[in-house]
Amino acid sequence: MPAIIDRDPVLIAVSTGGTSPALARRVRAWIEAALPSRLGDLARALDSARPTVNHALAAAPVRRRFWDAILDGPIAARILRGDADGGNRVLEQLAAPDGGRTAGVVHIVGAGPGDPDLLTLKALRLLQQADVVIHDRLVGEAILSLARRDAARICVGKAKGAHSWSQAGINALLVHRARDGQRVVRLKGGDPNLFGRVGEEVAHLRDHGIEAEVVPGITAATAAASAAGFPLSHRGIASSVCYVTGHGADDGEPDVDWAAAARPGQTVAVYMGLSRIAAITERLLANGLDPATPAAIVESASLPTERRFLTSVAALPAVARAHRLTGPALVIVGEVVRLAAAVRPQTTAARCPSPPRAVGIVS
Amino acid sequence: MPAIIDRDPVLIAVSTGGTSPALARRVRAWIEAALPSRLGDLARALDSARPTVNHALAAAPVRRRFWDAILDGPIAARILRGDADGGNRVLEQLAAPDGGRTAGVVHIVGAGPGDPDLLTLKALRLLQQADVVIHDRLVGEAILSLARRDAARICVGKAKGAHSWSQAGINALLVHRARDGQRVVRLKGGDPNLFGRVGEEVAHLRDHGIEAEVVPGITAATAAASAAGFPLSHRGIASSVCYVTGHGADDGEPDVDWAAAARPGQTVAVYMGLSRIAAITERLLANGLDPATPAAIVESASLPTERRFLTSVAALPAVARAHRLTGPALVIVGEVVRLAAAVRPQTTAARCPSPPRAVGIVS
Repeated sequence: MPAIIDRDPVLIAVSTGGTSPALARRVRAWIEAALPSRLGDLARALDSARPTVNHALAAAPVRRRFWDAILDGPIAARILRGDADGGNRVLEQLAAPDGGRTAGVVHIVGAGPGDPDLLTLKALRLLQQADVVIHDRLVGEAILSLARRDAARICVGKAKGAHSWSQAGINALLVHRARDGQRVVRLKGGDPNLFGRVGEEVAHLRDHGIEAEVVPGITAATAAASAAGFPLSHRGIASSVCYVTGHGADDGEPDVDWAAAARPGQTVAVYMGLSRIAAITERLLANGLDPATPAAIVESASLPTERRFLTSVAALPAVARAHRLTGPALVIVGEVVRLAAAVRPQTTAARCPSPPRAVGIVS
Repeated sequence: MPAIIDRDPVLIAVSTGGTSPALARRVRAWIEAALPSRLGDLARALDSARPTVNHALAAAPVRRRFWDAILDGPIAARILRGDADGGNRVLEQLAAPDGGRTAGVVHIVGAGPGDPDLLTLKALRLLQQADVVIHDRLVGEAILSLARRDAARICVGKAKGAHSWSQAGINALLVHRARDGQRVVRLKGGDPNLFGRVGEEVAHLRDHGIEAEVVPGITAATAAASAAGFPLSHRGIASSVCYVTGHGADDGEPDVDWAAAARPGQTVAVYMGLSRIAAITERLLANGLDPATPAAIVESASLPTERRFLTSVAALPAVARAHRLTGPALVIVGEVVRLAAAVRPQTTAARCPSPPRAVGIVS
């Protein structure tokens, strides 16, 4: 009996000829991950437009080119994103003078904390469809290698001593590539909606008549908490979870309300705070936070190089110094950290079940 | 006639139910690209080792874990790279000290906001490996159907008028199934680390010697922000993003510091706050929040039934009443909401790229 992937009316059957049910399940999983969830909607939309297209385009090769242009173009992409009016859009296209070419779309995609396994299915698919991937420095090779081999890759991240792109330069690049008709993925570490400076890029694209869609990603704070073995909220301990940025514009003081962050009964996750950890600790303590409040530092959460440290707020600067923490790190402060400390001390790190390995789709 | 992908003995057939030959060709190309070229070699290697493995591992769940470990591990990767001696490598693994057996593990997995496309690759894989999926009521069929057909599904969520599981009952169920040697996925909507009550379940499992791993998911707040077209943080507007719960134990007042939530310069996302929206609005205003602060309600973010409303804090209760909002909804308060309002007024809703269904924008 074959394994079935059902995107009604599209059906895909996988058979291993009885050699391995486990492999059949795995192949089914790979295909599920690779195919858009709304594939059935696309099939129905094409079907509904078919009689009219057949009538209008009598020659089979012309028809075939028309359908391929639809499938390669923005209409199919739109239907797969949930446009319920797909059939009519196909017919509009039939009447359009340009034959399907419209302004491009830029997908601003969250790459998650680093482990390719924590990409969303949507991120993976967009990455595999992209003609060009414009990415930050922190997005690693394990994720970038999931793009098509013939896709262009442009790193626009800041690296010490290397040429660094200005935000204006990145904005112009996005517009240029999208207008060129390319499928552009702007790939950002973590979740673009959280400290990803996505607002500037979205506004610039929209000002230039280009659609921008933001695909959320797994943010580093929750990956760090999972890795360290505590939740971010917990009834009776933390009913609020606050994410704050640890550095402001030009690496200066961020515009964070440290008095609010120092209140008890919540969890505070500080992004990009490691280089200013002494100042941040001082602000929290000056605003009345108990120095014994539990705190965690998780460096390179979800990556093979991940390191986790459970300590107290007062000791954060000393821990960061002692272990020479320099990678991207999350600092999490709050009583929830204690939920991990009891059961998962640093010494058990080696047997923690974090993902050792790569991703579902093999090439 | 279906399109065929042939990796003998693995055969994959694609049918679009006659709706679109062009789409069938396209899907075939996608699958061809996604599948390893030596998939047939892998199937043959597993098949050659099968009689010996069946003999050595009599219990079906143990056997299943063994095969999954092979497929997840270096042996499968090696065969796919061209190792001709695959069958023998599988048998060597059988003779290894742990024989492919692992202690019971419960994976507590975030299902994300609802769109299956926003599952992580890891969540999908664990779901497809699970012998039993224990899920909340809010996890939809589109996601549950990604589990194996022969996996048991147990809904432990609260539904009005229906039998409802206590937390103690859920805890006991998790331990029982894991001790039974089953691969247990505890599937929760959104991100288990945020208001997912994951702490209780993890503690109970650990107390009973069972490993618990939490797989983070996309939380509703970021899916809601993406759908509505604004980021959660924005330089100069919001350097902090706070998630709070809108209801406490037994549907009572949550233990939230509303004075902190009412401070300007941040974004506040209220989970499960719709039924108490009048009281929450009152708290925020009583603590000095400007009544004109922009606010959004996003119901069923990322699902086909999604509805979005952009308004002001003061008008939140009236909007919720007027549109009879009763589904799961996120309330987001802060100046970032204005970034959507400026560029995405009612009139342009039709050409918005993200889920275009039933857009309701009130301002």
